[in-house]
Amino acid sequence: MTTARPARKTGSPGRPGYDLDSLLAVAVKVFNDKGYDGTSMEVLAQRLGITKSSIYHHVSGKSELLELALSRALNALFAVTTEEKATSGRYIDRLEYLVRRSVEVLAAELPYVTLLLRVRGNTAVERRALARRREFDAFVSDLVVAAAEEGDLRPGIDPALTSRLVFGTVNSLIEWYRPRTGGTVADLADAVVELTFDGLRRA
Amino acid sequence: MTTARPARKTGSPGRPGYDLDSLLAVAVKVFNDKGYDGTSMEVLAQRLGITKSSIYHHVSGKSELLELALSRALNALFAVTTEEKATSGRYIDRLEYLVRRSVEVLAAELPYVTLLLRVRGNTAVERRALARRREFDAFVSDLVVAAAEEGDLRPGIDPALTSRLVFGTVNSLIEWYRPRTGGTVADLADAVVELTFDGLRRA
Repeated sequence: MTTARPARKTGSPGRPGYDLDSLLAVAVKVFNDKGYDGTSMEVLAQRLGITKSSIYHHVSGKSELLELALSRALNALFAVTTEEKATSGRYIDRLEYLVRRSVEVLAAELPYVTLLLRVRGNTAVERRALARRREFDAFVSDLVVAAAEEGDLRPGIDPALTSRLVFGTVNSLIEWYRPRTGGTVADLADAVVELTFDGLRRA
Repeated sequence: MTTARPARKTGSPGRPGYDLDSLLAVAVKVFNDKGYDGTSMEVLAQRLGITKSSIYHHVSGKSELLELALSRALNALFAVTTEEKATSGRYIDRLEYLVRRSVEVLAAELPYVTLLLRVRGNTAVERRALARRREFDAFVSDLVVAAAEEGDLRPGIDPALTSRLVFGTVNSLIEWYRPRTGGTVADLADAVVELTFDGLRRA
């Protein structure tokens, strides 16, 4: 979708070197490095090597950049919830599919998901993002409940706690996963799914 | 060990209201709220309601407060690695014990472990803490290797990746676990151990 590099020297005079996607990629990197609150439009302009007014050609301010970035992560995650394998078949298989695809989304959209997971709710944009995260969590929790009702989960599992723990495992990947270090995304997704669904212990 | 509330009005004239433990508890809360880099001695003094020189009665500066706080978390985690059940018996049982006790340490020392897990290595104190975290990770990874060699793990498990994922699950608790909300720490530790060792799926 978006390249991480600025598309230099391709802009019109009013848009010196960046399209919205490449500008957003740099902004998200700065937000992740310095924190959203600690990032001013001046800092963004410096890092981009353009003037503040050039940024305002694309967006109304840093709040809009945050909203675009968080939406990108949230839309990618919510897109998974409507995919066929997340909406048909046994619930445990839907849940497994959702976990696997979430790892893939996290790997593909790492800076955007990282930003999303660090949101603390200081602004209206952040609070809207948190509300959508809760909606996603509720979707996962409902799958866990339904899988338990179908008899596919070990007895005694608490659905809300289980959802939190499973997505705790998935989300913890932002702390250390980096593209091109170690195995493929498919291997990583396999490892997360195996640990979560089958556990470490030899049966 | 340490109470979270300042022991008000118990200090000598040079130590108005705080002993080192209660001062540290407040400092850690401020570090977690504002970030260590974003916390000045002025801010700390304001939050404590004492003068900066009163803080200097206890410590040489905020770097020493950070070191004390990180050591507290690290010492609690390392103490587990020398407990009898972490050093004798089958390796899978040692690993299970370590996971369970790590959840307990995280719950008991939540602000200190939270601070530890957010350290990024900007200062010498932080880099020493990261080195000790890596030492702890290596201890865990060695247990996973040994448990695999004893034939107690499902085949095909990557020890380093597994250690990361398991402690990713444990560490993710800092994002939502709060004392006195929901079940007991024992229930939480049970849930983490069951998910990690036996998985969600009915065998």
